[in-house]
Amino acid sequence: MSEIEFYFDFSSPYAYFASTRVGALAERHGRVCRWRPILLAPAFQASGNVRLIDQPLKGAYSRHDWERVSRQYDIPYRFPEPFPVGTVAAARAFWWLDGRDAAQAKRLGHALFAAYFAEGRNISEREVVAEVAAAQGLDPATILAAIELPEIKLKLRQETEGAIERGVFGAPFLIVDGEPFWGFDRLPQLDEWLTRGGW
Amino acid sequence: MSEIEFYFDFSSPYAYFASTRVGALAERHGRVCRWRPILLAPAFQASGNVRLIDQPLKGAYSRHDWERVSRQYDIPYRFPEPFPVGTVAAARAFWWLDGRDAAQAKRLGHALFAAYFAEGRNISEREVVAEVAAAQGLDPATILAAIELPEIKLKLRQETEGAIERGVFGAPFLIVDGEPFWGFDRLPQLDEWLTRGGW
Repeated sequence: MSEIEFYFDFSSPYAYFASTRVGALAERHGRVCRWRPILLAPAFQASGNVRLIDQPLKGAYSRHDWERVSRQYDIPYRFPEPFPVGTVAAARAFWWLDGRDAAQAKRLGHALFAAYFAEGRNISEREVVAEVAAAQGLDPATILAAIELPEIKLKLRQETEGAIERGVFGAPFLIVDGEPFWGFDRLPQLDEWLTRGGW
Repeated sequence: MSEIEFYFDFSSPYAYFASTRVGALAERHGRVCRWRPILLAPAFQASGNVRLIDQPLKGAYSRHDWERVSRQYDIPYRFPEPFPVGTVAAARAFWWLDGRDAAQAKRLGHALFAAYFAEGRNISEREVVAEVAAAQGLDPATILAAIELPEIKLKLRQETEGAIERGVFGAPFLIVDGEPFWGFDRLPQLDEWLTRGGW
């Protein structure tokens, strides 16, 4: 059984919402969900995409919809300030941990999403990332050092470039058996795809 | 019971897909679906939105997804050439007929969507619009004249401007009891909204 690859940026509300549901979805189909945090800014640059929040009309709709979706699925959420934020530190911490313990990295990922979107903590600050990691039993000094490792910087760059090469232009972006699904609202379609074995 | 307002441009594949399902959805909830064709170009201009097909990565994804969605729901579809097309004539013909017989206007709307997305006919040409109308039992000369009526030109302009004022930035865009839902993939959310009476 192949994986469900879950591309995202830690600053995407729809990716946060997806992160609370994609694990159970994968399990229902006997799949493993593989988290792949990237930086959306270069993907936006490659695709000509623009941050939702900066778009007239669509920005207002999105803010309204984030509240609505969070209530629809009972996902703790409040619009974070500042928004969006840079997620280099969060993503690097994830990738460093992923190389050691993938399950623990996912737990850190959940905690980072919650810190930003439920607790309003600014995860663009590396000290905040280290604090969130410390609450997961990790050594904060080790995390702060890991964020600066050349091989971890390179890893995140490669993941982001690799994602763009595979057509990723937004988040969440899920790939299953080569089939791409973009957007939180496509999880039901992905679910049906796995149930029917494609169509 | 208030209406489900269905804003769209006749050149939008996702709006075409929605047009095949929104009537039954409305009926399940005892609502009437009101079709409101507009021109997307001015809405895109107001929102800074860009046609999907013109966006790198997202354009390719969309073409793939239109095929996939059409197969998922068994909706007759083939990618039309040229794409997209201007829909001034189609939308004006609809609005003229809507002022006389709303049910017949919806039937013409279905026929125009099918002509473009299932039969590959270029509905940007007013003669094609008149032919499609003729197959619905309408007099083609009357349709050609209606398309040029100043009050019909004005009606379409007002509908488009009114849509933008209400926050419409893409298609399909549905509004129920003031609540906006954007995108074909939000029909299930709209369905749930009506079932639960909001949340």
